[in-house]
Amino acid sequence: MSKPSFDFYWEDFRIGEMRDMGRHTFSEQEMITFARQFDSQRFHVDPQAARSTLFGGLVASGWHTCAMAMRGMCEAYLNRSACLGSPGLDSLRWLRPVRPGDEIVFRAKVLESRPSASKPGVGLVKFLWDAVNSSGEQVLAMEGWQLFEQREAAKE
Amino acid sequence: MSKPSFDFYWEDFRIGEMRDMGRHTFSEQEMITFARQFDSQRFHVDPQAARSTLFGGLVASGWHTCAMAMRGMCEAYLNRSACLGSPGLDSLRWLRPVRPGDEIVFRAKVLESRPSASKPGVGLVKFLWDAVNSSGEQVLAMEGWQLFEQREAAKE
Repeated sequence: MSKPSFDFYWEDFRIGEMRDMGRHTFSEQEMITFARQFDSQRFHVDPQAARSTLFGGLVASGWHTCAMAMRGMCEAYLNRSACLGSPGLDSLRWLRPVRPGDEIVFRAKVLESRPSASKPGVGLVKFLWDAVNSSGEQVLAMEGWQLFEQREAAKE
Repeated sequence: MSKPSFDFYWEDFRIGEMRDMGRHTFSEQEMITFARQFDSQRFHVDPQAARSTLFGGLVASGWHTCAMAMRGMCEAYLNRSACLGSPGLDSLRWLRPVRPGDEIVFRAKVLESRPSASKPGVGLVKFLWDAVNSSGEQVLAMEGWQLFEQREAAKE
């Protein structure tokens, strides 16, 4: 089987660089559909019950916002990259609620980059992935790592 | 509207306490269904292409594992609690891949607990939520916070 070739390898993510990860408008119905399956707290599934909570109305599950950020990332660059997976996040903050009808913009910024100490031909990139609503407020901020094959190693 | 009453308030989460959050066997089909929607990297959606990756075969999206942990949490205790939401996670680690057919056990441990400094009647609890496969290996570990109403405040 021939080795797949990608647009982006470890070397292509440069510190300070920003990448657009698209935008998504969250509908009430999709918020409820996601939450019924994975996060059925009353303020995620029941608009009526949500009114009497701290949120004052239905809000998206934080995991739904993360999942849509991931989808934006895949479409924007990850599926054209030599990504080998992620060990995890150093921090994840749900800063403000996402409400029905909110249009959310997803972005990635490269914070750090280094070759893997244990895996030859592999590099690590630390990103800040965030999500911003139409008032310019951050609703989500995640700092975490992804592993990518190095371009030079991919030639071998 | 009368105030809802819950089984668990902030005071009911005691440091060191463990809670079972159930178990789930991940099927290949549900892994692919989730990943097609939210995380369409080749090692999450294409069993054939996944063979030539570092994973050596199809693995669940890390977000799918998180979402199933959340579902277990809701069913185990969260939906019977006075939970007011979560500001986020201090760390999230995808420690080992989840593969088709893996039965994963989800657990919660209370790490810290304190009253909110800014919100009267509210308390914060820090949890370690983890997920373990049938070989006893941790596949997921998350440390994060949830806000709960205090039992005393709920009486007012």
